[in-house]
Amino acid sequence: MSQSLDIAVIGATGTVGETLVQILEERDFPVANLHLLASSESAGQSVPFRGKNVRVREVDEFDFAKVQLAFFAAGPAVTLSFAPRATAAGCAVIDLSGALPVPQVVPEANPGILSGLGKPVQVGSPSASATALAVALAPLKGLLEIRQVSLTACLAMSSQGREAVSELARQTAELLNMRPLEPRVFDRQVAFNLLAQVGKPDAQGHVPLEKRLVNELRELLEAPLLKISVTCVQAPVFFGDSYSVSLQAAADVDLQAVNEALEAAAGIELVDADDYPTAVGDAVGQDVVYVGRVRHGVDDPAQLNLWLTTDNVRKGAALNAVQLAELLIKDPL
Amino acid sequence: MSQSLDIAVIGATGTVGETLVQILEERDFPVANLHLLASSESAGQSVPFRGKNVRVREVDEFDFAKVQLAFFAAGPAVTLSFAPRATAAGCAVIDLSGALPVPQVVPEANPGILSGLGKPVQVGSPSASATALAVALAPLKGLLEIRQVSLTACLAMSSQGREAVSELARQTAELLNMRPLEPRVFDRQVAFNLLAQVGKPDAQGHVPLEKRLVNELRELLEAPLLKISVTCVQAPVFFGDSYSVSLQAAADVDLQAVNEALEAAAGIELVDADDYPTAVGDAVGQDVVYVGRVRHGVDDPAQLNLWLTTDNVRKGAALNAVQLAELLIKDPL
Ligand SMILES: NC(=O)c1ccc[n+]([C@@H]2O[C@H](COP(=O)([O-])OP(=O)(O)OC[C@H]3O[C@@H](n4cnc5c(N)ncnc54)[C@H](OP(=O)(O)O)[C@@H]3O)[C@@H](O)[C@H]2O)c1
Ligand SMILES: NC(=O)c1ccc[n+]([C@@H]2O[C@H](COP(=O)([O-])OP(=O)(O)OC[C@H]3O[C@@H](n4cnc5c(N)ncnc54)[C@H](OP(=O)(O)O)[C@@H]3O)[C@@H](O)[C@H]2O)c1
Repeated sequence: MSQSLDIAVIGATGTVGETLVQILEERDFPVANLHLLASSESAGQSVPFRGKNVRVREVDEFDFAKVQLAFFAAGPAVTLSFAPRATAAGCAVIDLSGALPVPQVVPEANPGILSGLGKPVQVGSPSASATALAVALAPLKGLLEIRQVSLTACLAMSSQGREAVSELARQTAELLNMRPLEPRVFDRQVAFNLLAQVGKPDAQGHVPLEKRLVNELRELLEAPLLKISVTCVQAPVFFGDSYSVSLQAAADVDLQAVNEALEAAAGIELVDADDYPTAVGDAVGQDVVYVGRVRHGVDDPAQLNLWLTTDNVRKGAALNAVQLAELLIKDPL
Repeated sequence: MSQSLDIAVIGATGTVGETLVQILEERDFPVANLHLLASSESAGQSVPFRGKNVRVREVDEFDFAKVQLAFFAAGPAVTLSFAPRATAAGCAVIDLSGALPVPQVVPEANPGILSGLGKPVQVGSPSASATALAVALAPLKGLLEIRQVSLTACLAMSSQGREAVSELARQTAELLNMRPLEPRVFDRQVAFNLLAQVGKPDAQGHVPLEKRLVNELRELLEAPLLKISVTCVQAPVFFGDSYSVSLQAAADVDLQAVNEALEAAAGIELVDADDYPTAVGDAVGQDVVYVGRVRHGVDDPAQLNLWLTTDNVRKGAALNAVQLAELLIKDPL
C-alpha cells in the first residue's frame, strides 16, 4: 500500500510520543492526517509536524474510524481502554505499552511474525530493553547455542517517562545547591546513586520490568526456554540505556565470527576493542544499538561478554514502532 | 601483643589514607606514634588524629626503622619503591595497592592465612570489589557448589581516588550551568553517563581492574578455578560501589538457607525483599556489605541473584586494612 494513511498517536506529548512524531517526519512516513492524542491535561497544546502545528486532543473523544493506524504510547491503562475501540473501528494498532496479549516484534529479530497477523492488525513494540537485546543477540543465534543470558540493565531516567527525567535534574540541582532533597517519582535519592529495584517485586523477588524483559526477549529470539537472569537498575543518566551482558554458550565462542556477524547485522554499530560506547557519547539521538567490549569470560572461552547501549526512546520505542508500521503498510492494513 | 605500636600511613592525604587514620582513631587501635606520609606535594599539611594535628611528611625521607607497622595506600608505584625498605627495616607491611606478590586477606573470608605468614609480615588488603564480594560470598561456600559467578561492578568515583571525586562534581556543575565540558581524569563525560571500560584493556579485552578482581576473589574464596565473568563500570556516584551478582550453582539453591547464612555472617547487613540497599542511602559511612534482592533466576532455581553495595573506601580498603592489623597484633609482628 503506497497511498498515505491517517494516523493517530496516543500519548503524543510524552517522551516516546513526541519522538514518534519526529521520526514519522524524519523518515517521511506516508502520513495523510495526523491526530495527536493525550489526556485532558495537555489537550489544546500543539506539536510541530512538517512545519505546521498539530493540536493535541483528548483521546476520550476521538473517533478511531478516522484513522487506519494508531500508535499507543500512553501507558498500559490507556491501551487497555482505547485499543479495543480502535480495533472495533477497523484501525491497525501498534502498542508500545506491553498491555495487549499480542505478538511483540522487532524487525531485526522476528519480522516473519508480521505476515501472519490477522486484520485489523494488533502488534506490540516491546520494551526498550528487550528490543535492544534482541537486535544484538538475534545475529548470534545461528552462531552460538546460547545456554544462558545473564544481564544487568542500567536504565536511563527517560525509560520511566518525562517526569523521571525532570526528577534527576531537580534532585541534582537540589544536592549541588545544598537544598533538602525531595524525591517524588522515586522513593529515594537517584542523583549520584543507583536504584537496584525499579517497581514492586513479586513473591519471587522479580519486578514487572524484569519479567516483561525476560518474556519478550524469549519471544523475540524464539527461544521460549532460554534462561535469562536480569537485574534492572535505575541509573542517574537522562537518556540512553546500557546493558552489561554475559552469554553462556554450549561450546567455545569464536570471537572473530561473532564480530563479523555483529558487523554485518542491521541496526548494530560495533565499536572497536580499544574504545567502548556510552549512552551520552554515542547512543543518544542515534538509531542503532551500539555493541562494544566483545570478549570471552576470563579463562572461559564458552562465555561471551558484551556491553550494549542504545537510545531507549528511539530504537527502544518510537523508531521500532515506526519500523513496524513501515513493514505493515507494504500490505493493506 | 597488647602494647602500643608506632605506625606509618603512606598516602595519608588520599581518599583511603585519610579514612584509615579516622578508623584507627574510631576503633581505638593501639597507636603510640603515628607517622603520616605522602609526596612532596602535600608534605607540611596536617591531619587530625585524637584531637591533635599530625604533620604530613615526605615518604622519601622516612626511616622505616621508626615504626613496627606501615599501611601502604599511595598506589602501586609507591608500594614497589618503599615497601622493600620497610621490610628491610623489620617493619610489617599492609599493602592496599595490589602491587606486592603477597597473600591478599579479608578477615571474613580467609583469616587463616594470617597465621602462616613469615616475619616481618607482608600482607595485602585486596581491591574494594574483591573484598566486598568475598564478604558476601564466603558464607555461601559451604552451602552451594558455585559453578560460576557473573557480575557487573558499578564503581563509585572515589574508587579512583580523590581526583575522580572532584571530576564528577566539576563535570556535573559544568553541565548544569551549560558550560563546555572538560574531562580530565577520564577521557569523556562521566556525569549522567556510564563508562564501561575503566583502564586499558589487554589483548583479550579485560582491563587490569577486572583481572585483579578475578584473581583476588579466587584467592579469597580459595577457589582457584572458579569461573568469574566481570564488567567494571564507572558510575556517576561519588561514594559506594554496587554489584549486580549472579551465581550459578551445581544444584537448586535453597533461598531460606542462603538468607540464614547471610544473616548470620559477620560484616553483612541483609536487606528485606520489599526494600533494597543503595550506595548513598545505606552503604556510605558504614562498615558492612549490604546484601539485597536475594532471589533465584527467573525459571532457574539453580541460580542465585544478589545486589551488593558497600563503602569502597571503608570496608573496601581502610577498614579491611585496620581489621588485618587488629588480627596481626594479637601475635608479635
Ligand atoms: N520511555 C521509554 O524509553 C519507553 C520505551 C518503550 C516503551 N515505553 C512505553 O511507552 C509508553 C509511554 O511512555 P513515556 O516514557 O513516553 O511516558 P511519558 O513521558 O510519561 O508520557 C506519557 C504520555 O501518555 C499520556 N497519557 C497519560 N495518561 C493518559 C490518559 N489517561 N489518557 C491519555 N493520555 C494519557 C500523556 O499525556 P498528557 O500530556 O496528557 O499527560 C503523555 O503523552 C509507556 O507505556 C511505556 O512503558 C516507553
Ligand atoms: N579508593 C578506593 O576505594 C580504594 C580501595 C581499595 C584500594 N585502593 C588503593 O589504595 C591506594 C590509594 O588510593 P586512593 O583512592 O586513596 O588515591 P588518592 O585519593 O588519589 O590518594 C593518593 C595518595 O597517595 C599519595 N601519593 C601519590 N603519589 C605519591 C608519591 N609519589 N609518593 C608518596 N605519596 C604519594 C598521595 O599524596 P599527595 O597528597 O602527596 O599527592 C595521596 O595521599 C591505591 O593503590 C588504590 O588502588 C583504593
